[in-house]
Amino acid sequence: MNHPAVLSSRVRLARNYEDLPFDAHRPGVAETCVSRTANALALSGEDRGFALLTMASLGEDRRDALVESRMISRELAASPDSAVLLQEDDRLSVMMGEEDHLRIQAITDGLSLDEAAARCFAVEDALSRHVRFAFDDQLGYLTACPTDTGTGMRASLLMHLPMLAHHKQMGSVSSIAAKVGLNARGYYGEGNEALGDIYQISNQITLGRTEAEVIATVTALGEQLSETEAELRRNALAERRTATEDKIFRAWGILMNARLLPLKEFYSLWSALRLGAVLGLVPVSPESLDSLPVEVQDAHLRAYNEKPLTGEDLDAARAARVQSVIRAAKR
Amino acid sequence: MNHPAVLSSRVRLARNYEDLPFDAHRPGVAETCVSRTANALALSGEDRGFALLTMASLGEDRRDALVESRMISRELAASPDSAVLLQEDDRLSVMMGEEDHLRIQAITDGLSLDEAAARCFAVEDALSRHVRFAFDDQLGYLTACPTDTGTGMRASLLMHLPMLAHHKQMGSVSSIAAKVGLNARGYYGEGNEALGDIYQISNQITLGRTEAEVIATVTALGEQLSETEAELRRNALAERRTATEDKIFRAWGILMNARLLPLKEFYSLWSALRLGAVLGLVPVSPESLDSLPVEVQDAHLRAYNEKPLTGEDLDAARAARVQSVIRAAKR
Repeated sequence: MNHPAVLSSRVRLARNYEDLPFDAHRPGVAETCVSRTANALALSGEDRGFALLTMASLGEDRRDALVESRMISRELAASPDSAVLLQEDDRLSVMMGEEDHLRIQAITDGLSLDEAAARCFAVEDALSRHVRFAFDDQLGYLTACPTDTGTGMRASLLMHLPMLAHHKQMGSVSSIAAKVGLNARGYYGEGNEALGDIYQISNQITLGRTEAEVIATVTALGEQLSETEAELRRNALAERRTATEDKIFRAWGILMNARLLPLKEFYSLWSALRLGAVLGLVPVSPESLDSLPVEVQDAHLRAYNEKPLTGEDLDAARAARVQSVIRAAKR
Repeated sequence: MNHPAVLSSRVRLARNYEDLPFDAHRPGVAETCVSRTANALALSGEDRGFALLTMASLGEDRRDALVESRMISRELAASPDSAVLLQEDDRLSVMMGEEDHLRIQAITDGLSLDEAAARCFAVEDALSRHVRFAFDDQLGYLTACPTDTGTGMRASLLMHLPMLAHHKQMGSVSSIAAKVGLNARGYYGEGNEALGDIYQISNQITLGRTEAEVIATVTALGEQLSETEAELRRNALAERRTATEDKIFRAWGILMNARLLPLKEFYSLWSALRLGAVLGLVPVSPESLDSLPVEVQDAHLRAYNEKPLTGEDLDAARAARVQSVIRAAKR
């Protein structure tokens, strides 16, 4: 079944070396993590397609762009001794010298946590042939932060839920999620913001549940939200068609014509446009719009334009980028 | 010289019959005005193209549409015994049984008060061959309201002044106008509003100045405002090109895509779009947009759609009408 509300799936595994202190900021720890992991992957023969990027060697814009793409964490970007093994096209990364010694992460399209998990475990398996991870028979994998101990796994979905947000249902969604050990929160913005009506659904609990159970629980909530969202969409078209179309086509008109597009306004218009794409009202597919929230962020715009853009120039570059992506996507 | 800020010119002459009480609401007065005037115009042989419309015979929507087009006054529309002699295509009308016995009015395109005045005087001349108007050698033409006595003439320009409005200059424009006996005020909206940045410039004074002097004074202020507006436009393009274009193209995008367009929002977007047309930024001429502020009013929309539209249906019809007019105007 198709779940257009699910933008992407992500799994990440926290792993630590049993013989190293659980503190990557201690001198030498991060460097050892990096060299040991890179060697182990090379020895396993599974290192094809991976690039080894040390934070110290990357410019600030490149690091920021990797953070925007979620290929590395903000914490990793800020640690000069750390590094990432990266298959950028496949959105597969091994962060080394973050809070944990290793964070293996895979992002996949749509609702596909099984696939994302399989990619992470393939990397973990390859490494395990040559290194030993801290593991306790009672607790499972040991981690820097106790909230990750157990499976060390975080499975999350990025979801676009404009109708649930419109009907102010995300508060109760959060409560329901918490009851089954999951967390639902706005992904972009500060505090309680959920810019673009984009939410992240993820597991809170890593202890006492198998990886398969966690993936099944997150997937089930994702499916349920997706179906509720679809029902609200159908109701909106049946009961408020003109007002719904008005919002969507106004967003289309502004996105295709503005010369300056602040990031916050972009999110709001993008949300309406993607809703229109899911409803088949505008001549682009939802999938063709899914990369935009990342593409229009500052470091991505600087990289795309090969210019150190700031202020109004960023807003101008954002408008131009949106228009070129949408024009290219037009059926 | 071209003055794109001037939307239209209007002249109206107040005239009264010397043998009738100056009160059209007194029984029989309006009827006498109507029959006498219609007969006089017929006798003069100048009645070709004129339709005689009595208010009692017109439906409310038709009366409202004539008020929206400024072919009749709201007061005339509310007086069942009154009537209008109308050359609708030429925007020439003779209101009978309004505050004054007669109000002869001509509207012409752009800055052309001389032409509008000539049309009014042609009608007045034709009537004068067969009727006598109340005239005093000292005061001039006598009128129901003393503020019209003298020439009985009101000359006005409808102007689109978005840059003067943007720079909050209309307060001082008003003060300057008052010093030369003119009045400058927002044309659409309540109180101090000037929806669409549309202003009316007209003479306050009808006594002690010839018709030619009044027309010259109003024309001179119109030219001056037009030139100031043009200078501010040039500055906006030179100094804030991206922000100026952003405002204009957003207006284009919303006007061409909205499914619901409230009247107030229409005015604001129309103003930005027409500025873009004057600046040559959008592929339509300013003139092609000049009828829109009238075409999108309620009675016009009802007449165009041949439906008794209300509420959201009016906003939907307005959006559709705007889009069809702009599409037809596209170069």
